[in-house]
Amino acid sequence: MDTTISSAGNEALEQQKTRAYAWFRQLQDELIQRLEAIEDAAGPPLFHGQAGRFEKKDWKRGDGSEDLGGGTMAVLRGRVFEKAGVHVSCVHGSFSEAFAAQIPGADKSAGQFWASGVSVIIHPRSPRIPAAHMNTRMLVTSDCWFGGGGDLTPVLDYQRRQDFPDAIDFHAAYEKACDGHAQTDYAQFKKQCDEYFHLAHRDEPRGIGGIFYDRLNSGDWAADMAFTEDVGKAFLDVYPELARRRMAESWSDAERDEQLIRRGRYVEFNLLYDRGTTFGLKTGGNIESILSSMPPVVKWP
Amino acid sequence: MDTTISSAGNEALEQQKTRAYAWFRQLQDELIQRLEAIEDAAGPPLFHGQAGRFEKKDWKRGDGSEDLGGGTMAVLRGRVFEKAGVHVSCVHGSFSEAFAAQIPGADKSAGQFWASGVSVIIHPRSPRIPAAHMNTRMLVTSDCWFGGGGDLTPVLDYQRRQDFPDAIDFHAAYEKACDGHAQTDYAQFKKQCDEYFHLAHRDEPRGIGGIFYDRLNSGDWAADMAFTEDVGKAFLDVYPELARRRMAESWSDAERDEQLIRRGRYVEFNLLYDRGTTFGLKTGGNIESILSSMPPVVKWP
Repeated sequence: MDTTISSAGNEALEQQKTRAYAWFRQLQDELIQRLEAIEDAAGPPLFHGQAGRFEKKDWKRGDGSEDLGGGTMAVLRGRVFEKAGVHVSCVHGSFSEAFAAQIPGADKSAGQFWASGVSVIIHPRSPRIPAAHMNTRMLVTSDCWFGGGGDLTPVLDYQRRQDFPDAIDFHAAYEKACDGHAQTDYAQFKKQCDEYFHLAHRDEPRGIGGIFYDRLNSGDWAADMAFTEDVGKAFLDVYPELARRRMAESWSDAERDEQLIRRGRYVEFNLLYDRGTTFGLKTGGNIESILSSMPPVVKWP
Repeated sequence: MDTTISSAGNEALEQQKTRAYAWFRQLQDELIQRLEAIEDAAGPPLFHGQAGRFEKKDWKRGDGSEDLGGGTMAVLRGRVFEKAGVHVSCVHGSFSEAFAAQIPGADKSAGQFWASGVSVIIHPRSPRIPAAHMNTRMLVTSDCWFGGGGDLTPVLDYQRRQDFPDAIDFHAAYEKACDGHAQTDYAQFKKQCDEYFHLAHRDEPRGIGGIFYDRLNSGDWAADMAFTEDVGKAFLDVYPELARRRMAESWSDAERDEQLIRRGRYVEFNLLYDRGTTFGLKTGGNIESILSSMPPVVKWP
């Protein structure tokens, strides 16, 4: 049995886990600040009610009989962001045997794993503001790797083009994040994003893409961690900029309807294909946190 | 290779297929009549607009280069029934290798199959009227069997009890349908329904149950077909009675909200667990028909 996970002697790995988890929490806090600042900046005639605030809630994995980790979910139900979730988790324990067979190194770690990550899902009220998703994570079995990405889901047909300014700027932000790191391949990560966020049953893309990567382990943990931070920072910069750009625009009832129908595709993707959802459900993750990605109102007319 | 499917000599099986498909179409027509009659009977102050009518649409499976069967979907967007679908299909062809491995007899039929069925999904506008689902089907590989069932999904908490009158009457209708047939086991079918329509991730039942059976082949095709007809007739009698009973009741905004949230559970079940959805998606079924089961408006607040 490989003892990298439990061995108290492996201080380097323990420090890496600590540092990754600390970053995910820091990014959660920064995202919350940026999104709440937009809630403050918006108002009538387009946005009504109070500026929204994130509500944080801690959760523990398992039934409490042993320490299996947990997380902090933060959900905003606001005037600009109809529903947004920014979650961190740090969980550990054993995969089920069937699930372990699908995870690299889980056979050698006797199914033991450690995982931590941050994820953000944003469903704006205005159909002019694109929905978005970003997630980064660190996984440890007998192996250790990073995964994540960010992608943009404009909900109006005329915005769902690669030559729309929001798409251009979103892609540029991620290209820049990759370019600073020798171990990354932007073109490949962009392609993987398009392949991953695809609704096979409809042969439709979920959004306009972004980047997606998994099992990133260049052999230089510090370099991979630095890239993970840059993926988060890219989102932190570009998404609020896009939201502010579009929040001055009014929208029609027909556009709202288009948004609600498009959100149905988002639900279909998350429940039929999304690995994060599957991972969460199969490892006894927090249902409330996992399914907080569901849009607040959806139509299948 | 077993040639029961393609052999022109097997007239008995061909007649059975023809008879089953004819029944499914007849049941589709009768269900449409019963539901449209309720649309006619309802009106202000609770229900507004015109009485709804089903719109029928034929579809073909595949790209048209060969005959793989198809179906007729009928969808109603009405004043009592916010969205209802009554579909028949009759499809044939080859399972993918991976899928064939999960289907009885598909190895011996070289992946060849024939399938026909009728399905109904009803999402009423009033939260006081329970949602419902019924499906019966006949499958042929090198083996031949029936599957199906009916189940009720009240959306308001106080109706989601086994001692609520609608639940009692719904169960009684299916007990009666089973009791006339020696090869059936009502208690077992009821148990299978509870087990099948269960949201594992929430440890919640989808509704109050009904019956569910699969791979029914008693060795007497005519007897199994007669049972299949009675399962359809039971629904045809009991569901319109329940809808008429509850359609005189007004409802509150809070109850409408409870309905929209409960519908989210319905979506979760269908996309995460439902075999019919999976079967349809994996056999190149008609997306519009399969996903017409999605509720018209849903909330995940």
